[in-house]
Formats: sequence, structure tokens, C-alpha cells
Amino acid sequence: MAAQVNPPRGMRDFLPADKARREHALGVIRGVYRAHGFDEIETPVVEDWSRLHAGLGGDNEKLSFSILKRGIRPEQLAAAAEAGNAEQLADLGLRFDLTVPLTRFYASHRAELPPVFRAIQIAPVWRAERPQKGRYRQFVQADIDIIGEPGLLAEIELITATSQALSELGLDGCAIRVNDRRILFGLLGHCGFAEEQHDRALITIDKLDKIGAAGVVDELRGIDAAAAERIGGVLARVEPALAGDGIPLTREAIRAVLPAAAPGSGVEAGAESLAELGAALAGALPAGVSLRFDPTLVRGMGYYTGTIFEIAHPGSGSSVGGGGRYDGMVGRFLGHEVPAVGFSIGFERVVDLIELPGDTGPEAIALIHDADASPADLAAVKRELVARGHRVRLERRQKNVRALLDRVSAEGFTRFASVPAGLRSADDLELRALEA
Amino acid sequence: MAAQVNPPRGMRDFLPADKARREHALGVIRGVYRAHGFDEIETPVVEDWSRLHAGLGGDNEKLSFSILKRGIRPEQLAAAAEAGNAEQLADLGLRFDLTVPLTRFYASHRAELPPVFRAIQIAPVWRAERPQKGRYRQFVQADIDIIGEPGLLAEIELITATSQALSELGLDGCAIRVNDRRILFGLLGHCGFAEEQHDRALITIDKLDKIGAAGVVDELRGIDAAAAERIGGVLARVEPALAGDGIPLTREAIRAVLPAAAPGSGVEAGAESLAELGAALAGALPAGVSLRFDPTLVRGMGYYTGTIFEIAHPGSGSSVGGGGRYDGMVGRFLGHEVPAVGFSIGFERVVDLIELPGDTGPEAIALIHDADASPADLAAVKRELVARGHRVRLERRQKNVRALLDRVSAEGFTRFASVPAGLRSADDLELRALEA
Repeated sequence: MAAQVNPPRGMRDFLPADKARREHALGVIRGVYRAHGFDEIETPVVEDWSRLHAGLGGDNEKLSFSILKRGIRPEQLAAAAEAGNAEQLADLGLRFDLTVPLTRFYASHRAELPPVFRAIQIAPVWRAERPQKGRYRQFVQADIDIIGEPGLLAEIELITATSQALSELGLDGCAIRVNDRRILFGLLGHCGFAEEQHDRALITIDKLDKIGAAGVVDELRGIDAAAAERIGGVLARVEPALAGDGIPLTREAIRAVLPAAAPGSGVEAGAESLAELGAALAGALPAGVSLRFDPTLVRGMGYYTGTIFEIAHPGSGSSVGGGGRYDGMVGRFLGHEVPAVGFSIGFERVVDLIELPGDTGPEAIALIHDADASPADLAAVKRELVARGHRVRLERRQKNVRALLDRVSAEGFTRFASVPAGLRSADDLELRALEA
Repeated sequence: MAAQVNPPRGMRDFLPADKARREHALGVIRGVYRAHGFDEIETPVVEDWSRLHAGLGGDNEKLSFSILKRGIRPEQLAAAAEAGNAEQLADLGLRFDLTVPLTRFYASHRAELPPVFRAIQIAPVWRAERPQKGRYRQFVQADIDIIGEPGLLAEIELITATSQALSELGLDGCAIRVNDRRILFGLLGHCGFAEEQHDRALITIDKLDKIGAAGVVDELRGIDAAAAERIGGVLARVEPALAGDGIPLTREAIRAVLPAAAPGSGVEAGAESLAELGAALAGALPAGVSLRFDPTLVRGMGYYTGTIFEIAHPGSGSSVGGGGRYDGMVGRFLGHEVPAVGFSIGFERVVDLIELPGDTGPEAIALIHDADASPADLAAVKRELVARGHRVRLERRQKNVRALLDRVSAEGFTRFASVPAGLRSADDLELRALEA
């Protein structure tokens, strides 16, 4: 019996206290992003199946939930069975991220949007992952994206706004790790990896925090032994710096860990861009947020083209947010390239890390009444208090009044009164304080 | 090319202005419902397929979107093809209403909820209907439900709170039509319809506003000619009353249109209950909302057991909200009966009927800058204004400055300034008013 009434596997119900805390946190994020000039949009939770499987979502495409076509005919079923392909029967799917829908939205509505479009999307996404602690099949992402701004101004605005949102949520001790895809590819080329080896090499470099520099070099030897040794020389400088306080995002510190590269190379361009970004953000971030260079930061998605960033927090084993520049992606729907950068907060992880106030609304009053009280009288008294700006809950008296008072106090109510039989005006109530 | 970037059929994207208006309206509804002592909860958008097809959703079950199982094996596909049943391949579905998930939620969490639970659910639902004007495949419902209160207090609280929400949204001229299922079934019995004919007869009576009393009687003759004549006698009194100002929800007016029924009959019990409801709500509703008795109101769902209500508005061809008492439904998951009443606002219809303010947040300032301005300087000036509590948008200068100013004004910005090269403090900006 118990299992029959649970939500589907890997998904959650939110009780009133949880829901209030989540809405409060979402309101803080939304408020900061709006203050920074971003505008909220919304897209349907489903997208065409083909769009969700167009190669833009990386591994997430495999995790997407597919929706059956309506009115499937027997011959369609037979054809799918013969082909051994159930996905022929799907025409829609639940979105696995907010970036694919955003690029579709932008392509559809660009004529109605400002030339530089700053979007907020705060909404759930779905992934059929194996459920585990802190990982859910429906979870909320809070994304901001700037479409149409080619310069670093976009990165600066995104990082400033996200940092302030995390700070106003009370999440102290965040480190934003920053890298540039051009540095990664430049380094690989500089060390001698052939272009077709780059993707495989990046997957290995991404494991640095798990297998260490020696492990990375070991694995890279399987791709190209000489190149692996050369990148080992770079990692030997980088690894101890990351293990300590990290590498500041300053020109000097960036240069110190990178090999001298040819002017005009990817390493050079990326390093210069990051130095400029670091200078613009110096002193601009809230006290609880630090900025660090990490030349081994990869980020999984293939569509990133420039700056990439990820938020680390000591309270979370995995990142609590991330993003980057993806200049090529929007253009896939438009036929011409459009610059774009995005930053996504992993809302579920953040909300687990912060203390949140419960109810922050108007003063809440619990009115305790007998089961046989006149509904009309109760409604009249309640209406009067609501009209005065209070939140009012009618509570039928129970044997254990102490338990009732403890419960409503835990629910955020701060005052209570008993409604005597025949009372028709709130003026005659004896309101008393509830102890918190 | 254009079709490829549209949202899926029957679903919509919301641009910033739309989204801001919708969020404003949802905030009004949420605020009123919280003031009336209700608490917001949230459930996953998907439920187990079997729960969505357990007979609780009426016709909506047929309209539900089904989600393919993950990792379907060839033999499962073959079995489904052989059975000609694609739904064997689905294990989840998108919810088609918020009532089925609420009853599951309540059964799962009742130990953590107050004895009388007042729930708010404001969330999207999905139905694969043929898209048409004002009817969408993803749409928002705003529901309140009271679970655990057997008395009329529940109906009174729901109708009071919903009326105030509609009034605060600025929706004037609403009529809440009220009936009681016990009156409907009692009338059918009184006129001589056998119990097994009741459901068919109700479907016909529900068409009164389309085919008139004569049409209804005509159709009912096909079920039982004598009973049809007798109900015709009732409808002859009801039809002209409904065509005029409607029937007030007073004991006198209710009695005047109903046949004298045996004490203790369904007609008697329902009429008495409605008279009490009308008396309790007399003078209690906002000026823009009237309350009317309609003995021909049926409401589609089979699970209603007592009071039913529906909101009519002259600006909408169909109802803008409705609900009723469904005492038997929650018990299906629990094994014992739990009283419940719900009221749902059809948010999409309401939002189409009201004028809404756009941005109501802090003063919004547009900062116009040259394309080659220093990003660090721009970010510093913006940061300063945000810290002072403004909403701030950077806007790259375009050739037609007038067009730019018109656009940001339409977007709710009220002041603007040009940022001269080298400016690093907001104090040196010349802020000017934007004409609305």
C-alpha cells in the first residue's frame, strides 16, 4: 500500500514548509537577476523529440524521457517492433536542460527580442538518471543567458549576477573556477596531440581531481606517449597550485602555470581574455565568492567555444552551478552565428546547502474553533482579519491543544485566539502570542 | 525553417512581457490563498501511468500524454505490437489535472499534514486536446482544496478565497453558479428515472444552455418518456429564471423552483445545504462576484458527491473555474472515507480576461553604451546602481536611438542615461526620464 502512493521513482513531493522555502529561494534568485537587467521567459516542458536528439545535449540526450505519439496505429507498432526501435513511437520528450529550448525560443522569436537578449529561465528539467542522494529525475535549474553580445561584458554580467544571487541566498565560500576552451585545445595542440585526439584527451584531463596528474598522464600515454609527457610538465605546475588556494584569475598567475605559447595561438587568446575578465571582476564580487583559474576545467558539453566556468562549494561533492560561452549553437537554427553565454545554478544542490527563512509574509493568526461552531460566524471573523492584512487559518479544536499550538507555531503562525460561540467580530477576539 | 523552431503543437512560449504579467497574476492568486490560510505544495509533473488511468479523471484520462519506459527490450515491443496496445510501453504520464496528484499526495503524507489540510496547487497540466483558440495542450490551473472538513465551512472558505482572488485580479462580473449533486440525483429519482439511467440523463441535462429545456426533454424521452415529462415541468420553472438574472442562493428562491420533495430526500438535503451556504455567504463576497443557484449545473467529473460550483463570466464562452465536493475520492487510496472539496481557477482563461500591470518592481534604468566601451567600467557603473536598489539594463547604442528608447520604455524602463567613455561612477550619470 505504501509504495502505491509514493511519487514516481527519483521524483519528490514538496510539503508546505519545503515548498515555502523553495519559493523563497527562487524569489531571491529571480529578484537579483531581474535587478541585473535580465528578463524571465518560459517555454513548454516538452520539445519535439527530434530536437532533443539533435546532438546538442551530449550524454543528457540518452537520459531524456520520451512521450508516446497519440493514437498509434497497429502498423506503426509493428514497424517499430520490426526495427527494434521504440523511439519511433515518440514525437515529443521532456526537456533535459534549458539551453536547447532557449536556442529554439530565440530562433523563433528573435524579431520580438532586443538585439542583446538577457534571459532568465527558472524551471524544472527531467533526466532518467539512476536516482541517488542529491540526484533527482525532476529538478529545477535557474539559468541566465546573454544572447547577442560577443564581448566579455556578457561573462562579466553573468558572473556578477550569479555571484550576487548565491550571496543573497547566504551561500558563502563559493569558488568560481574559470577556464577557456581555447586554452584547453591550444594546450593539447602545443603538447603535440592531433586534433582528432582532443575530445578523448579532454575526457581524461577532466578526471584530474579523481586520479591526479600522474593518473591523467598515464591514461594520456595510451593516446600519444610523447604528448602525454609534455602535458605532464604543465600539470606538474598546475596540480600543486590547485591543491592549495588555487590560481588567482590574474595575468601573472595565469601566465605562470601555462607554457609560453605562440602569439595568436588559442592559449595566448584564452589567457589574455581570462586576464581581462579577472581584472574586470577584481573587487566586484561579494565577499563569499572567489574567482580562480583552473586550466584543467573541461565542462562536459561539446558546444562550448570560449570561457567556461563552474561553481565549487566545500559543502557539495559536485559543482553547484556552471556555464560558458557557446557561440556556435544558436546559429544552428538560424543559419548565421550568434554569440551566446549562459550560467546555470543547480538549484537543488544550492537549496540543500543554505538555511532559509520559513514564512516571511504577513502576520499569521490561527483561529481555534469548536467543531460545531457556526460556519457563517467563523467565516465572518476570518474575513475581517484577512481584510486587515493578516494570514488567517481556521483550526478545529483538538483534544491536545498544546500539540495544536506547537504545530501551527512550527508552521509560521505567530498569534492565536479561541473563537467563542456566537462571536461575530474580530474586535472581540483575545489574540495571544504563540511561542516560536 | 519557421515551423522547425516553433514550440510543440498546442503549446506556447512566453515572451518577457507575457511572462511578467503571468507571474504577477499568479502572485496575486497565491497571496490571497495564503492569506486565507492555505499552504502551497508541489508534486512531480508525471505520475504513474496506472494512477492516471484508474478511472478518476473521466474523459481527461484519454487525453493524457504517456511516457515511454526507458530501455524497452525487443520482446516487449513485439508483445505490444502483438497486443496492438502501445500503452503497454508506458509507465508514466503527464498529469491531466491537479486533483489526482493531490489525492495521492495526501495519502502519502497525511501523517505530516494538519487534520484539516488546506492545499494550494498552482501548476501546469497537460491534455492532448485538439488545439483551438483559448485551449492549449499545456495550461496552468490554480487549485485550492480542503481535505478533512466535512461541513459547509470548507465550501464557504473556498468560495470566499476564490472570489477574492478573482476580484483582486480585477475580474469583475463573475457569477458563481452553485448546485448540489444530491439535488440532481434526487430530482431524477423524484421524476421517475431509474438509478442506472441517472448518468445518461445528467449528460443530457448538462446541455440545457445549448439545446434549451424543450431539447433536453426531447432527448430524455429516449430514456423514459413519463419521467422526461415530469422533469420538463421542473425545467419550465427553471429555464426562464436562469435566462433572467438567475436564481439567488436563498432558501425561498431555491424552494420556488424545486418540486416539494420528501423530508430526508436528496433534494431536501441538497436544498437545505445550499440555503445555508447562501446565507453564510450573503454580503461576504466582493462586489464583482454574484452567487446563483442553478439546478441544471452538472459538472463533468463523476467523483463529485455534494456541492458543485462553476464560475461564469460574460467575457468567456466557457467557465473560468469550477469545483465541488468529492468525499469519496481520497478514500480510494486510504481505505476510509475522507471529506474533500476543491475549487480550480482556469488560469489561462482568466489571464486572457484581465488587464494586468507590467513591471511592478523597482525603478528600472537603461544604460546606453558604445560597443567599444570598457566592459569593466560598464559593469562597475551597473553594479553601483543595482546596489542602490534599481533594476539596470545595459543597452548597446544603436543607430536609431529613438527606437531603442521606445523599446526599453515599452519594456517598463522609466529612466535612461548614456555612459560616456571612461565614466566609472554612477554619480556622474545624467539620468533622464523615459516617456511611457
